[in-house]
Order: sequence, then structure tokens, then C-alpha cells
Amino acid sequence: MTSKKVIEVFYDVVSPYSWLGFEVMCRYRHVWNIELKLRPAFLGGIMQGAGNKPPGLVPNKFMYMMKDLTRSSEYFGVPLQKPSDPFEAMFQKGTYEQHPRLRSLSAMRFVTAVQEREKGGDKQVEQVSRELWRRIWTEDKDITEPASLAEAAMKAGLSDSDIEEALKLYTSKEIKDKLKNATQDALNHGAFGFPMVVCHINGKPEMFFGSDRFELMAHCIGEKWLGPQPNKSAAKL
Amino acid sequence: MTSKKVIEVFYDVVSPYSWLGFEVMCRYRHVWNIELKLRPAFLGGIMQGAGNKPPGLVPNKFMYMMKDLTRSSEYFGVPLQKPSDPFEAMFQKGTYEQHPRLRSLSAMRFVTAVQEREKGGDKQVEQVSRELWRRIWTEDKDITEPASLAEAAMKAGLSDSDIEEALKLYTSKEIKDKLKNATQDALNHGAFGFPMVVCHINGKPEMFFGSDRFELMAHCIGEKWLGPQPNKSAAKL
Repeated sequence: MTSKKVIEVFYDVVSPYSWLGFEVMCRYRHVWNIELKLRPAFLGGIMQGAGNKPPGLVPNKFMYMMKDLTRSSEYFGVPLQKPSDPFEAMFQKGTYEQHPRLRSLSAMRFVTAVQEREKGGDKQVEQVSRELWRRIWTEDKDITEPASLAEAAMKAGLSDSDIEEALKLYTSKEIKDKLKNATQDALNHGAFGFPMVVCHINGKPEMFFGSDRFELMAHCIGEKWLGPQPNKSAAKL
Repeated sequence: MTSKKVIEVFYDVVSPYSWLGFEVMCRYRHVWNIELKLRPAFLGGIMQGAGNKPPGLVPNKFMYMMKDLTRSSEYFGVPLQKPSDPFEAMFQKGTYEQHPRLRSLSAMRFVTAVQEREKGGDKQVEQVSRELWRRIWTEDKDITEPASLAEAAMKAGLSDSDIEEALKLYTSKEIKDKLKNATQDALNHGAFGFPMVVCHINGKPEMFFGSDRFELMAHCIGEKWLGPQPNKSAAKL
């Protein structure tokens, strides 16, 4: 019998904040008494389904996000780099689905296919997701072509035959539907962007958006959070 | 000689997230080696100056904010209650400046007048701000009439003569200009909403938006942050 609380993390590799949230949750699953479920989904479907707009249409907000991503990248040790051009397309113009570099539908179908085939764990889906993020958000490389997906899977440690099977599978109706369903699940939980974390507490889902609510999340699932430590100079007051 | 880092917190009592950020910063100033500067400013001017829209126009986002405010209120021990009607006006319709209950310009001028008159500290401005938040966000009361401002100041412990002087002062050009300048300072730092915290690190300002970046802030100012504590059940894995 297990007392582990189930936590789902919904993400899309096109989203840099998703990468931050994903990595932090992958770390905390070794610290908290939780069972983490990776839920690859499609951000384009979320934005459309929720009627949301890209966050960077307000110039001050866009500039803040650039700064916030740089600081978070350094703090959490997630190597985010500004890609050569898709940034403005994604956050400012809201045209990221039209931008060839930012069409994540194939990539998320591929991740879904890897997940569908993986037995006894989620190491492959975790690693493949990470390698896709690394391609787009660190190395400024394509994530839309089959060769790109294969390269990410190879770096993630999948065998040639595993990669071949996943490449056969990812355009099937079964996988398309699976990704659609995951995206719909996220919308049903109230998603309006990614990452979204859903903590299941006594059968009740508690949703957290973004990569900056870990303290509240700890409180919600009954884990200890120590937070700030008294500074000796301040304590003298 | 002091090594204290100067941290400014820009806020408006009309904003519930400002209340959360304000209270947490007021607590951390006793934990961190910082000098906290309270910067009452006008959110209406920020939204207009930055060209920002209210955050709750997307229905899923609005519902999430309600949930997030409830959870944060409980976790941080800040008694936010949903007011009888201004909530939708503020977050969904974006008409909060037209809503009689949400016109915070007088309140923020009054806070500015209290700050202008206060010598040797900021206890009064802190308490008056808190009592104004309590009126609107806990007790569902008016914050626009002079009598309401006087009542908040009385509860904050100001003397009758202090209140009388502040009520004479808050409609003066001097105070109007001071509030305008504080709002412009916030815009110059890149504000697009409140609360906004500016940490001055070696003469360089580092801006943080919202009430959910304390962990990054600690890192930025060189304070320790302990974060999550290993759970024994998880550690067994």
C-alpha cells in the first residue's frame, strides 16, 4: 500500500516555463512522497481552447519575462538560451503556431508515442522531452522534422529499433487521439497555459499554473517547506 | 556602516496580490538583511502607462486566480475575502477604475500623505495601508470617502491630529505629484502591474513582479532559502 500523492505535470516542449516546471518536479519527486505522472500535451490546443493570448503583447511584460527566464534558468540550472528568432514570434506576435521552428505538434505526438510504447516507467519520455527542450531552448535547433525527433531520441538513449517504432507510431490516429485527449484533460482541469501541475488530494484535483508555486504546492500536499533562513545580521535588530 | 540591501515594494491597496506581496516582504525584512522601502503608487496609472489589460479576461485564468488567491490567503495568513461585487469589475471587465468601490486614487494619495508626514520610520504608512486593504479585501467596505480613510487611519493607530493633517494634505498638488512620481518610478523600472519589488544589488535594480518569486529574490540578494525538505517516505526509494 502506498500513501504517495499523484501529481500530474502537463507540458509542451515549445514552452520554456514548462521546461523549468518539468525539471523542478522531476527533482522534487525524489524529495516529496509523490508519484509524478508526465502528461505531454499540446500548448496550441490549450491556447485555442481557453481563448488565451500570448503573454508578451505588453512590452513591459515581455521584457520582464525575458529577464525572469534568464534568472530562473540560472537559479534552477536549466540551460535556457534565447533562440535566434522564435522568441518574438512566440511571446509578442502570437504567431508561434505559424512559425516553422515553433510547431510543436509533431514533437508532442512523438513524445506521446514514446510514452505509449514505454513499459515500466517513464525514463524514456522524460529524457526525450528533455532532449527536445534542449534542441529548441538551448541549441536553437529544429524540432519539427522526423530526423530532428530521431536525433533527440538517440541522445535520450533510445535504441535504433525503439526510435524506428516511435517514428512509425507518432502519426497514427491512436497517438493523435491520445495527445488530443491529454490536451482536453488539461483544459478540463482549467488550463490556460503550460506548465500546469495537478495535485490529487483525497480525490480532489488542485491545479497550479506556472513554475513559481512550489511553496504553495508543498503546503497543499502536506510536505514541509523551509523557505527563507534567518540572516544573522537581520536577527540582531 | 550597513550592508543592508535596499528593497522597494510598489503597491496599491486595490490589488489583492499586492497585499500578499506586501505582508510577506514586511515579514522578511525581519528575516533578511534588507532595508525595505514602502512605495505606495497608483495601479490605474501603471495599467494605462504599460498598456496592460486586466488578467481575468480569459475565463480559465479568472477561475484560477480566484482559487490561487484563496489558497495564498490561507497559506500566507492574509485574510482576503471575495468582495460582494467588485471582483468581476476588476479582473474580468477591466472596468475597475469606473467602479465606485475600486477607485483607489484617493486612498493611495492618502497613504502618500501619511508617508510624507511620518518621520523616523514607516510604521504608520504600513499600518494605514494594511487597514485599507482590510477594508476592501476583508470587510467589503468603502475606501474612497474621506470618512473611510479617517476610519482606516484611526484603526492604524494615528492620532486625531495626525488624521486631520493627512486629510488636509492628501488632495494637495504636492501629494498628487508625489504619487504620480512614485507611479512613474514603477513604470521606469518596467512595471506592468502590482505588486512590484525592486531589489537594488550593487547599484543595479532587479525587478520582480507578483507575490510568487520570493525564492528567486532570496537568491538574487544572497540570502539562504531552504525550500523543500526531504520526505522520509520518499527518501526510502
